[in-house]
Amino acid sequence: MILFESDYTEGAHPEVLKRLVETNLEQLSGYGNDQYAESAKKKIRVACHCPQAEIFFLVGGTQTNQTVIDAMLQNYEGVIAADTGHVSVHEAGAIEHTGHKVLPIPHVNGKLEAGALRRYLELFYLDANHEHMVFPGMVYISHPTEFGTLYTKRELQALAKVCREYQLPLYLDGARLGYGLMSRGTDVTLPDVAECCDVFYIGGTKVGALCGEAVVFTKHNMPKHFLTTVKQHGALLAKGRLLSVQFDALFTDDLYLKVSRHAIEMAELLKQGVAQKGYSFLLDSPTNQQLVILDNETMRELARSVSFNFWEIVDENHTAVRFATSWATKEEDVRELLRLLPEV
Amino acid sequence: MILFESDYTEGAHPEVLKRLVETNLEQLSGYGNDQYAESAKKKIRVACHCPQAEIFFLVGGTQTNQTVIDAMLQNYEGVIAADTGHVSVHEAGAIEHTGHKVLPIPHVNGKLEAGALRRYLELFYLDANHEHMVFPGMVYISHPTEFGTLYTKRELQALAKVCREYQLPLYLDGARLGYGLMSRGTDVTLPDVAECCDVFYIGGTKVGALCGEAVVFTKHNMPKHFLTTVKQHGALLAKGRLLSVQFDALFTDDLYLKVSRHAIEMAELLKQGVAQKGYSFLLDSPTNQQLVILDNETMRELARSVSFNFWEIVDENHTAVRFATSWATKEEDVRELLRLLPEV
Amino acid sequence: MILFESDYTEGAHPEVLKRLVETNLEQLSGYGNDQYAESAKKKIRVACHCPQAEIFFLVGGTQTNQTVIDAMLQNYEGVIAADTGHVSVHEAGAIEHTGHKVLPIPHVNGKLEAGALRRYLELFYLDANHEHMVFPGMVYISHPTEFGTLYTKRELQALAKVCREYQLPLYLDGARLGYGLMSRGTDVTLPDVAECCDVFYIGGTKVGALCGEAVVFTKHNMPKHFLTTVKQHGALLAKGRLLSVQFDALFTDDLYLKVSRHAIEMAELLKQGVAQKGYSFLLDSPTNQQLVILDNETMRELARSVSFNFWEIVDENHTAVRFATSWATKEEDVRELLRLLPEV
Amino acid sequence: MILFESDYTEGAHPEVLKRLVETNLEQLSGYGNDQYAESAKKKIRVACHCPQAEIFFLVGGTQTNQTVIDAMLQNYEGVIAADTGHVSVHEAGAIEHTGHKVLPIPHVNGKLEAGALRRYLELFYLDANHEHMVFPGMVYISHPTEFGTLYTKRELQALAKVCREYQLPLYLDGARLGYGLMSRGTDVTLPDVAECCDVFYIGGTKVGALCGEAVVFTKHNMPKHFLTTVKQHGALLAKGRLLSVQFDALFTDDLYLKVSRHAIEMAELLKQGVAQKGYSFLLDSPTNQQLVILDNETMRELARSVSFNFWEIVDENHTAVRFATSWATKEEDVRELLRLLPEV
Repeated sequence: MILFESDYTEGAHPEVLKRLVETNLEQLSGYGNDQYAESAKKKIRVACHCPQAEIFFLVGGTQTNQTVIDAMLQNYEGVIAADTGHVSVHEAGAIEHTGHKVLPIPHVNGKLEAGALRRYLELFYLDANHEHMVFPGMVYISHPTEFGTLYTKRELQALAKVCREYQLPLYLDGARLGYGLMSRGTDVTLPDVAECCDVFYIGGTKVGALCGEAVVFTKHNMPKHFLTTVKQHGALLAKGRLLSVQFDALFTDDLYLKVSRHAIEMAELLKQGVAQKGYSFLLDSPTNQQLVILDNETMRELARSVSFNFWEIVDENHTAVRFATSWATKEEDVRELLRLLPEV
Repeated sequence: MILFESDYTEGAHPEVLKRLVETNLEQLSGYGNDQYAESAKKKIRVACHCPQAEIFFLVGGTQTNQTVIDAMLQNYEGVIAADTGHVSVHEAGAIEHTGHKVLPIPHVNGKLEAGALRRYLELFYLDANHEHMVFPGMVYISHPTEFGTLYTKRELQALAKVCREYQLPLYLDGARLGYGLMSRGTDVTLPDVAECCDVFYIGGTKVGALCGEAVVFTKHNMPKHFLTTVKQHGALLAKGRLLSVQFDALFTDDLYLKVSRHAIEMAELLKQGVAQKGYSFLLDSPTNQQLVILDNETMRELARSVSFNFWEIVDENHTAVRFATSWATKEEDVRELLRLLPEV
Repeated sequence: MILFESDYTEGAHPEVLKRLVETNLEQLSGYGNDQYAESAKKKIRVACHCPQAEIFFLVGGTQTNQTVIDAMLQNYEGVIAADTGHVSVHEAGAIEHTGHKVLPIPHVNGKLEAGALRRYLELFYLDANHEHMVFPGMVYISHPTEFGTLYTKRELQALAKVCREYQLPLYLDGARLGYGLMSRGTDVTLPDVAECCDVFYIGGTKVGALCGEAVVFTKHNMPKHFLTTVKQHGALLAKGRLLSVQFDALFTDDLYLKVSRHAIEMAELLKQGVAQKGYSFLLDSPTNQQLVILDNETMRELARSVSFNFWEIVDENHTAVRFATSWATKEEDVRELLRLLPEV
Repeated sequence: MILFESDYTEGAHPEVLKRLVETNLEQLSGYGNDQYAESAKKKIRVACHCPQAEIFFLVGGTQTNQTVIDAMLQNYEGVIAADTGHVSVHEAGAIEHTGHKVLPIPHVNGKLEAGALRRYLELFYLDANHEHMVFPGMVYISHPTEFGTLYTKRELQALAKVCREYQLPLYLDGARLGYGLMSRGTDVTLPDVAECCDVFYIGGTKVGALCGEAVVFTKHNMPKHFLTTVKQHGALLAKGRLLSVQFDALFTDDLYLKVSRHAIEMAELLKQGVAQKGYSFLLDSPTNQQLVILDNETMRELARSVSFNFWEIVDENHTAVRFATSWATKEEDVRELLRLLPEV
């Protein structure tokens, strides 16, 4: 069985694991008070061109979204997101669990459009009853999106502009950020993300680490007593070293970008091969998630040898499925997948 | 600097880390759907003499307490705990964050007494206003306690008896369970814990793992859709393998008990040495946490070379501090600590 | 100034107020333990043809929705509602405040359609990732809806059928229930509501009372310790008599229906008059809320003498506004409103 | 049966009810946007000698505590209260329901002592682990307390001083404030309360109103968008007139104080009579709640004709019970109670 079902089917990148092994028996204080945390934060600040960045390491993506959003919202506020955003759909209500509504806006290819955001905000404040409604308190986007699509620099800047006019922090979920930054056509760099966003996270779990997400507050805006809030959410790791050593490794010698580039190369190989076989895509994704439309018989046949994700029903006879590559994907596995796929 | 400040100053036990390295590039499904999870659960069921046990792996202790307690309580219920219990004091309000009150009962040496529990429950139901109060919905104990003390088998059984009479689940926080099981004088075994408790967790973070706690539901009582609740709490790990591989290693060839025994041996060495130097203890602890009373000058002097925890002020000139040993404590470090301590 | 801005611009119906005055100095126990509560409940059971109904009086609508929904959902569940439902939009996130997501389904004239509900549920359980999503745990409808529209008996039964198949309680928000029951064309009676729904509330605040909503659990399904849950939500009224005396009056000699009928008559008068002047409606409402499309100049002019609600922008020059009648509306005020409205 | 079980056994003071009747058919906007709200607020500002006071009317006491405390705390904060405080014990966990811990300090006669408060705060910040604990974010006191006792002006000032040093708002629960202000020995006036406290509420439910509590923010510190927060808590009354007309009446011609004085006179009569019969008191209460120790036989006998509250078991043969007077207590009922009590 070859697994293309997600970008977290292997453990850590060997370089990352090596550093965990090398530092394993060093005595270090807990909760992020260790030298590797300091070192990793410095490297991330440099990579972001953001010397004032405040950084906190958390374990997983839903946990990060839940903790950051809850910490930054007032009790009467909700978070605006595309209706397909991870926080809107696939986090089992983790945001609502903390008392906040996710305010959905219809997506376009998984993205939130600046124009739609502005209209939403204008209408909200025009509404004479808006004091009886949830105030928008933050804007959430994911990059890459849940569909693998990417914002352009211009789109990000347009969102940031609306957010600043309305004094709303812009939060970017970068669970797969590396795969976005290394996408061939993108004009968005890590410093662009740091400049446009008030807070974002650099995903480790899906990009080379065993676990871990680095939250970056870019505007001197880390919430007061954030460590306590993290603890209160059950999100404070005792052995903070597990996160800091991994991020220190990922941000040494551009490892984060290198491992991301490999996933993109594998995705491109897969994408071209699939297209050559005559299959079409649900939409055009420039990153590591490819949404391919299969006829149902091919889908069933392929599922005997390859794991992938159901995405959505296209019509009676066709289904969109997702293949994900990662830093760990082997070229031979992509070729085997292509070999198994019949010509349309 | 030698660190005795906690039992989580090193990474993972070498055997545990070795298994992570060996399995690192195997492709495995996420969220605990992997063969190592199945294997680890089987071994834990055997170790607990509890074939029906339902087991779920979580990342950390506060997270585990928060998720399990919230999942098992009704909205009008709170959890009874000793006033010194971890959930009462040192989890930054993680239980209240989920809407539930911690109902404190005065401790005796860190323990909750069956008699005090029964009186609390009797008075609650006698109180004509109890419908205006938080209903007790669960009983929380920690073993070892936050003071390093242990319940006897008889004490555990007495608590379980009261709980059953009042139909309250008994939950045991086993963050340091191994150190309790390997304590020299204890008559409590892992099967005893499984029999007395409705749910408990076997702590990994402090006993040989990089992270991870194994929650064990012993009475066919895992809450419905528990995975969804875990996700909602931001506590579901994508790479579940990180937890399952470690617990699989810890429950192979009694490794969990072996690494625990080492911590106890080091604690005994420390305890005897400290006593021989003429120091007294805040209370008698049979496990890996030793609460020693130091005069303040000795404390300040020692702090230059050794890290330990402030525990409480004893009088104007004396302070109780905590030294913790672990699976990783080196005998030479204990001896060096004793060398640095002057005779009283 | 004449107020058509809402159906709560006057105090209580004189008959209701009279009973409050008459009973004012009687000594009664608090929290609903009074004889008027028992009497009111009996009368409501009779009116509902539902002898087993369990009834609880609460103060206001949002409070009722919040308390009932939170009490009936499991922590991993959300409530399905039309995207225009009161709980979806105009309760400032009161449902999310208790940790539950409102799961919106696109409305048709303010209503939730049984077909759309079924499709939602089918897709949910088909989705391989549904354990990472909020489980549907209840269905919320309002009758009349926020647009003044009504379900037919057949539509209610169809919704109830889907709910029973999926074991979801059907909850009806009857903030304006009287105005629905007395609408001329309706075939839905109070016993129909009681039969179709698992729980609903009979609105008092908007239908003759100073405040108060009567929650009716129809299927032996009042949540355990509901009084405690009500207290925990800050919703338990000390002087429960304020609610029970009013509902006892409203359900004596069909007063609730009589006061409702008056509002419908006034709404019909207004509706016909407005139509005769050449105005059109946003949609056809058979109840006490009429959504009229005005050109903006007329709207501004009328606003000098009459208060009404902004509803939505129709086009550059037209706006939909809401006129609400109630049990207290004076015929002369409706005629004055019509006089003030110019012919189109 | 004569009811001394609480101070809310009758409806509204006749003057208050009269105003409700007189204004009943006036058309008024909802949610507190009515002229009586403005009028009542002005009168309260004058009575408090606090021209800048921001005032909001809520329905009940637990609701008020829950809404105010939740609105003023950060997510990582809890509220300090005496362990006998209403929020600590008798609100069914309403504070915890909003995610905040009640931090209990042992009471002295129901009161929180400034010295104990200071020690708690000093120890909190001395504790090296305090970032893993709930931060104190507010101080809650009740005046009169749950035992009927009162703070002196000096005690209030001392609490206020500690609060200001630690930048904690001081919140006074005045459910029975009138009965405190009219107690014979007190030196605390309403302006003193307004000066010492950052926020407090003037209880209406127990002091002459059908329902209603007036929250007073004294330091330009009403939380932003407080109306939305109130709505989110299900606490916004549609017919705000019900609250504003009542408070307007209560603060006209000192009615609030006059009705309170009557309760105190009745309590004094009862207290003297009971003492003359040879009974002792659990503690000395100068307000409308009297905690009397009865032998159990007398208690059982008396309960046939008079209702009162169980308070606590004193010894095998004696029980403390509470008798409450109110603005509505009849002198003849007190005399009948005394007649029924045998000499000790």
